[in-house]
Amino acid sequence: MIVALSGGIGGAKLALGLSHVLPLSELLIVANTGDDFEHLGLSISPDIDTLTYALAGLDNQELGWGRRDETWSFMETLGSIGGETWFRLGDRDLALHVERTRRLRAGETLSAITAGIARRLGIGPRILPMSDDPVRTRLRSDAGWLDFQHWFVRDQTRPPVHAIDFAGAAEARPNPLLLEALRSRPRAVVICPSNPFISIEPILAVPGLRAAIAACGAPVVAVSPIIAGQAVKGPTARMFEQTGMVPSAAAVAARYAGLLTHYVMEPEDDAAGIEAQVIRAPTLMRSLKDKIALARVVLSAA
Amino acid sequence: MIVALSGGIGGAKLALGLSHVLPLSELLIVANTGDDFEHLGLSISPDIDTLTYALAGLDNQELGWGRRDETWSFMETLGSIGGETWFRLGDRDLALHVERTRRLRAGETLSAITAGIARRLGIGPRILPMSDDPVRTRLRSDAGWLDFQHWFVRDQTRPPVHAIDFAGAAEARPNPLLLEALRSRPRAVVICPSNPFISIEPILAVPGLRAAIAACGAPVVAVSPIIAGQAVKGPTARMFEQTGMVPSAAAVAARYAGLLTHYVMEPEDDAAGIEAQVIRAPTLMRSLKDKIALARVVLSAA
Repeated sequence: MIVALSGGIGGAKLALGLSHVLPLSELLIVANTGDDFEHLGLSISPDIDTLTYALAGLDNQELGWGRRDETWSFMETLGSIGGETWFRLGDRDLALHVERTRRLRAGETLSAITAGIARRLGIGPRILPMSDDPVRTRLRSDAGWLDFQHWFVRDQTRPPVHAIDFAGAAEARPNPLLLEALRSRPRAVVICPSNPFISIEPILAVPGLRAAIAACGAPVVAVSPIIAGQAVKGPTARMFEQTGMVPSAAAVAARYAGLLTHYVMEPEDDAAGIEAQVIRAPTLMRSLKDKIALARVVLSAA
Repeated sequence: MIVALSGGIGGAKLALGLSHVLPLSELLIVANTGDDFEHLGLSISPDIDTLTYALAGLDNQELGWGRRDETWSFMETLGSIGGETWFRLGDRDLALHVERTRRLRAGETLSAITAGIARRLGIGPRILPMSDDPVRTRLRSDAGWLDFQHWFVRDQTRPPVHAIDFAGAAEARPNPLLLEALRSRPRAVVICPSNPFISIEPILAVPGLRAAIAACGAPVVAVSPIIAGQAVKGPTARMFEQTGMVPSAAAVAARYAGLLTHYVMEPEDDAAGIEAQVIRAPTLMRSLKDKIALARVVLSAA
C-alpha cells in the first residue's frame, strides 16, 4: 500500500499521477481537513472535494479549481438577495456540500460520506479524511484570528500571518483506516507537493499520526512544492515570508524533519541542509504525462 | 388596507392582479406556511416563494412553478451522487432556501427574512407568513401520516387521504402585523382561489386569526378555485373526493362558513346553499389581463 498525504490542487495532481501507475487498491490518499469550514450553513471540505474531482476526472481545468461543466446560477441569485458571495460555490459543486451536510447531520462520518460519493463517481483509490473529528486551521494575523478560508479567499491572503493553530487537533482521533494502513507495513508514505503549513502539518498534528508514519518502517518520500523559491500555486511562499522565513525547497523539507527518507525537488533548487536522500526531477505538473512521470519518480525513489 | 389570504400558484395569480390595481402600501398578502418543510437540511417555504417570484415577475411561466431562467445543475449532480431528487430545486431557487435556512438558524424570523428578500427583489406589497412559528400540514393516508410535500410531490397525491392535521397550529402565534392590520379596519379580506384544505385552512387554524377576520368589520370576499367541479390546478378536487365530498364551488364556500360576505364564482357553477352574496365572473387567470380583471371584480364586490 502507498499512503499519500495531500492537500488540494498540487497534491491532487500527484495523487492522480499515482492512481495511473498503481493498482487502485494499493493507493490510499489521506486528505487534509484543516481547510474545512462551515459556510452558508453548509459543511465544506475543499481538499476532499479537490481530490474527488481530480480523481473522477471532473476537475475544472479552465478555472484550476472546482468542477468542470460548472454553472453559477446559485451564486448569482444569492448575490441578488443579499447573501455572501465571497466563497464561490458552483451549482454542481453545491450538490456535494448539501449532501455532505445532510449526511453529517444524520450522524454519518465524513469518511463514510467521502467514500460513498467517491464510489458513486467511480473513483478507484480510497480518499480518507485524516480524521472524522473537526480540525480547523486558524491563522493569527494582523486582523486577529482568522479561519483559513476567510484569510485565503475572503481576505485574499492580505493580512500578515504570525501564527497558525489547528483548532481541535489535540482532541481529534486519527482515521482508524489510516492507522491500520500505517501499521500494515506500507510500501511508502508519500507527502504530496502541498503547502506544508496548512495542508500537511494539520495531518501530522492529529495525535499519533506523525509517530505512526515515523514508525511504519517504509520510506517517506516528499515532493517539494517550491520551484526557484516560488510556490507553484497558493499561499505557500507568502506564508513563509509572513512568518519570517525564506521560502525554499530546503525550508519545506525542514518542516518534515525526522520523517523524510527521500525528497524529490527541482534540479535548480538548493539542497543544502536537507536531511534526506535528494532526488532531482521536474516537479511542475501541467499535463497528465507530467503527473504520471512525477509519480514514477516518487515510486522508484521509494 | 386589503388583506389577502393566499396559498401558492392560484393565490399568487390573484395577488399579482391585486398588486396592479391597488397602491402597493394598501396590499398585505398573507402566505400559508403549512406547506413548509425541511428537505436536504434546508427550510423550504413553497407558498412564500411562489408569491415572491410572482410579485417580482420572476415566476417560471413555462413550468408553471419555480422561478424563471432556471438551471438544474445542482439537481442533476445531486442525483449522480445518490441524493434525493424527488423535490426539484432549481439552482436559482436554491439560493432562497440556503439563505433563508442560514438566517433562520441565526435567529431571524421568517417574516423578517421574507421581507428582506422581497425588498431586495423590488416587491411592493408586503408578504407576511401567517405565523413565524412552524405549522406543518400532515395528511393521514392509506400510507400512514405523511408530510404534505411527501404526499403531494413525492407520492404524486396517490395515497387516499382521510384526515388533515396542522401540526403546531395550536401553539402558533399569529403574525402580529397581520393581527394589527385586521384590527385597523381593513377595507376587505380577500380569500384567494387557493386550496381550502391545505392553503387557506392552515391560516385559519392559527389561534385567533379566524376570530380576528370575523370581527374585523370588513367584507370577506372569497374567489372559488373550482370551475365546473374541477380544480384549476393542484390537488383540490382530489382532496374533496378522497375525503368523501363532491368538489364544487359551493363545497369550497361551505369551508369558510361564518366568515364570507361575498363569493366570486364561475357563471356556470351551482350557487345553491352558498351563504354569501354571489358574484358571477370568469375566474380562470391565464394572462395578466385576466388577473387584473378578477382583482377588479373582487375589489368592487368589497
